[in-house]
Amino acid sequence: MSNKQIIGFDADDTLWENEVFFHKAQMKFIELHPHIKDPEEVIFQIEKKNIKFYGYGIKGFILSLLEASVRFSNNKTDFQNIDKIIKIGKDMLAQTIQLLPEVEETLRHLSEHYMLIMITKGDLLDQQRKVEKSGLLKYFSSTEIVSEKDEQTYLEILEKNNISPKDFLMVGNSLKSDVLPVRNIGGTGIYIPHKLTWKHEEVDRTFDLERVVELKTISALKVWLKNQI
Amino acid sequence: MSNKQIIGFDADDTLWENEVFFHKAQMKFIELHPHIKDPEEVIFQIEKKNIKFYGYGIKGFILSLLEASVRFSNNKTDFQNIDKIIKIGKDMLAQTIQLLPEVEETLRHLSEHYMLIMITKGDLLDQQRKVEKSGLLKYFSSTEIVSEKDEQTYLEILEKNNISPKDFLMVGNSLKSDVLPVRNIGGTGIYIPHKLTWKHEEVDRTFDLERVVELKTISALKVWLKNQI
Repeated sequence: MSNKQIIGFDADDTLWENEVFFHKAQMKFIELHPHIKDPEEVIFQIEKKNIKFYGYGIKGFILSLLEASVRFSNNKTDFQNIDKIIKIGKDMLAQTIQLLPEVEETLRHLSEHYMLIMITKGDLLDQQRKVEKSGLLKYFSSTEIVSEKDEQTYLEILEKNNISPKDFLMVGNSLKSDVLPVRNIGGTGIYIPHKLTWKHEEVDRTFDLERVVELKTISALKVWLKNQI
Repeated sequence: MSNKQIIGFDADDTLWENEVFFHKAQMKFIELHPHIKDPEEVIFQIEKKNIKFYGYGIKGFILSLLEASVRFSNNKTDFQNIDKIIKIGKDMLAQTIQLLPEVEETLRHLSEHYMLIMITKGDLLDQQRKVEKSGLLKYFSSTEIVSEKDEQTYLEILEKNNISPKDFLMVGNSLKSDVLPVRNIGGTGIYIPHKLTWKHEEVDRTFDLERVVELKTISALKVWLKNQI
């Protein structure tokens, strides 16, 4: 393995905590709406239906929670709940960044040997804010904030940066968004699972494992890369 | 003037209608809330306060309308209004593109002589969708979707594209976002007013007019550029 290789990093739940804040927000929603049956499923179905309108990110999530509150409450919800959900969203948007263990030292080390790119999806302003607050910007040659992480998106990023897919490794916690599309265009997907992964990102695990690597932690990347030489 | 010059175009209310849809949504909100006094001012103040959380775009606007509905209604609003506001947002996000007069022929002509860049701010997914639906993509070398249009943003775009500010013209309907920051970094701002401009984009008109040009319509650009040779 030579330094010609470029490493892409997902950010949410790969570099810093993210899904946990959605999870906590959902728990608060459920507490506020004890009358909604199977609330996780109600929220998931509304979010899924709304992705084509809202895309990924906190604002769309909050709009979906508001829709769930109004539409599945049979008028049992009250206005304070609407106000509280809006407040939950603002708290999420103002949330401080919690880096995952060993992220900073791993990036510091890798940035001395490889070109690193951050590739993240979601709300533009919110993702920019997180990137800036994280203090990790200095380790990356560039950051790409995209609305969807599919084969086409990765091909465009690689073309723009003049990178051949065979020299590209993508590290992330989502098989659907980080690993499989990169594997499908001829790159290598490095899967580092996070204990919480959004249901929308789950895929059937019966895929061909060629050029897919699973590591337990981000710090294992250094060792894995060394062994590839 | 040589072809070395690069022309940046704002999109919303410069290439296609945008503010009119916010205006219509606000009118619908006001009809649904006859009990809110001075509703335009209430909405404007909430939006202004929320920009730091939501940024620009439809999702943040709808979240602000929902906040206005709940907080300024003294419990006189009803749940149907919440549902209706969410629906207004989805209709806005699904809105077809209405190009402004003479946009397409002007861009077709200019793209044969100049490098054109589209620079627009707002929700990433929504802006991408509009750019694609507009059919105008073929006239632009690149499109930049940003969260704020200030001096720093323009400098970064120019640096990335290896453009000197003195060779850069920026065309748009907002003095605040399109014209003044570009003038301030040494480029030329070309102001083409639109009959509707969001209050947030208004600036005190007592600025120095050096390197600021005001044109009545986009088609006047061709003539103006010709006269600069």
